[in-house]
Amino acid sequence: MEKYEHIHELVKPIREDLQSGAAEIALRAITVFQTVMTGPESAHPDELKAALNAAVKELLEAQPAMAPLFHLCNTVLLAIADAKTVEQIQKDCQEALETFERTLCDSAAGIAEKVYELIPPGELIFAYSFSSTVVSSLLAARAKGRYFRVASTESRPAQEGRKLAKQLAAGNIEVTHTFDSAMSLVLPNCSVAFMGCDCVGMPGVVNKVGSYLLALACKELNIPLYALAGSEKIVGDERLFEFEKHERPGEEVWENIPKGVRVLNHQFELVPFNLLSGVVTEKGILLEKDIEKYVTTTRVHDSLKLEPVTF
Amino acid sequence: MEKYEHIHELVKPIREDLQSGAAEIALRAITVFQTVMTGPESAHPDELKAALNAAVKELLEAQPAMAPLFHLCNTVLLAIADAKTVEQIQKDCQEALETFERTLCDSAAGIAEKVYELIPPGELIFAYSFSSTVVSSLLAARAKGRYFRVASTESRPAQEGRKLAKQLAAGNIEVTHTFDSAMSLVLPNCSVAFMGCDCVGMPGVVNKVGSYLLALACKELNIPLYALAGSEKIVGDERLFEFEKHERPGEEVWENIPKGVRVLNHQFELVPFNLLSGVVTEKGILLEKDIEKYVTTTRVHDSLKLEPVTF
Repeated sequence: MEKYEHIHELVKPIREDLQSGAAEIALRAITVFQTVMTGPESAHPDELKAALNAAVKELLEAQPAMAPLFHLCNTVLLAIADAKTVEQIQKDCQEALETFERTLCDSAAGIAEKVYELIPPGELIFAYSFSSTVVSSLLAARAKGRYFRVASTESRPAQEGRKLAKQLAAGNIEVTHTFDSAMSLVLPNCSVAFMGCDCVGMPGVVNKVGSYLLALACKELNIPLYALAGSEKIVGDERLFEFEKHERPGEEVWENIPKGVRVLNHQFELVPFNLLSGVVTEKGILLEKDIEKYVTTTRVHDSLKLEPVTF
Repeated sequence: MEKYEHIHELVKPIREDLQSGAAEIALRAITVFQTVMTGPESAHPDELKAALNAAVKELLEAQPAMAPLFHLCNTVLLAIADAKTVEQIQKDCQEALETFERTLCDSAAGIAEKVYELIPPGELIFAYSFSSTVVSSLLAARAKGRYFRVASTESRPAQEGRKLAKQLAAGNIEVTHTFDSAMSLVLPNCSVAFMGCDCVGMPGVVNKVGSYLLALACKELNIPLYALAGSEKIVGDERLFEFEKHERPGEEVWENIPKGVRVLNHQFELVPFNLLSGVVTEKGILLEKDIEKYVTTTRVHDSLKLEPVTF
């Protein structure tokens, strides 16, 4: 990959980003493709295609859990497949990027409308980790005159939950915040819980670690829990389990690891559908039975096909 | 309380200690009583009694969740009740302290024997937060030739789980460690889970925050969860709920709290009996039905009686 060292560098901030949700990361990946399109390889069509393929590879390795990134890459590869000239590749790619960005924004707006209906006026609601979809939906509900308070937790180790708390407080939403395991103390006062997610598939949704315990607690306490996700987050099982690759250095959890201790730092986990009240998408609130049709209708570029998962 | 400023100072390290378990704290409180016994008030019996009462008050305010501390204070007050001279107070108090310390040590040894039987050879077991009883039981099992590995998490915000990991690793037990909400990723590989506890009462056990989510996850995953507790941790309901007083500054969770965000930092929570496999005491493994007789036979000094809890 030495040939594409500059692309590797370009993707670095996305690789190191543990604070942003999947939709945000996809928006930033659009900029990566735009940079590559006018980069050193843009003199020759085959070289440009190879460079865009290299960017796809880098992006998917950087954030293997994030479905919108996969769909963005898939869209780009399908769009440029038949282009023969540099100009045609650039035109097709740019169109694909713009369409994808519009889809992301439309999804977010559609989800916000549905979330508004799910927030009981005057109540405390719970929000986990950071998700631009959750933040924009809650801020939109507040702007539409819905009054509510939010409880959130920090989301160790990257503490992107603090980012959510800050953005909501800056939007005049009153926030009560605590550490992750203390969610058990605030949840009994919450009427509903929301989380973003990185992937949706037949077995459930993938989101930051902590989501599974949140889901268990919500079930025990009879609190509805919704994952918010544009339909661009739906993927097949073989892609869904890519999140297991996302392991970070143990030193990010414990700086001076003592001898004899091994520190695990996994970022994502699966929350099965039986622990969720539904996935709020721009097309409506989806349940387990609704996911299959979205999974099977997605056309995947040959180079992005993975071996089927066997259970 | 200005009169007893020196006692307030003496108790300070115990007040600030978020890393030690209840049995450890009680052992350190013994030293506080010994210091007070020979302090500036030891010239006159009434003054000495008043100073010991002041130490009791300070200790119970410092760590309201810890039952052994309550029983230690209760034992001291009952022991010195009828003493008329300084010498008699000192003698009665010292005897009470020595008996209590012996009881703590005997309990720990008795519990360790029972824990040995609960550890399946060669398996991974889970241990939460810090408890000297859990650490000594696991080290004793290892010393007796039982081979096993331990998974643990940090226990935000005081991170006393790291102390547990370090002490076990130093005792040649292989430890896998992660952040609290990632317990969901290691628990599926564990055969049994242990936690210490600070109080046992009719509704359940009180332990560090995080214990409730651990208990929910253990129930969902069919992993037996035992709380380890000498019978000196059993108290009445009115005393059990004292843990709710133990709130720490929000800044210990988030140093620079942004405007509009309120940060909660509660330390303890209740785990109801229906989420536990049992409480391992020196007298055997106790279930919900066994607790009542221990609660009702405890004689409480008048000055330590609390209003009954009404639900």
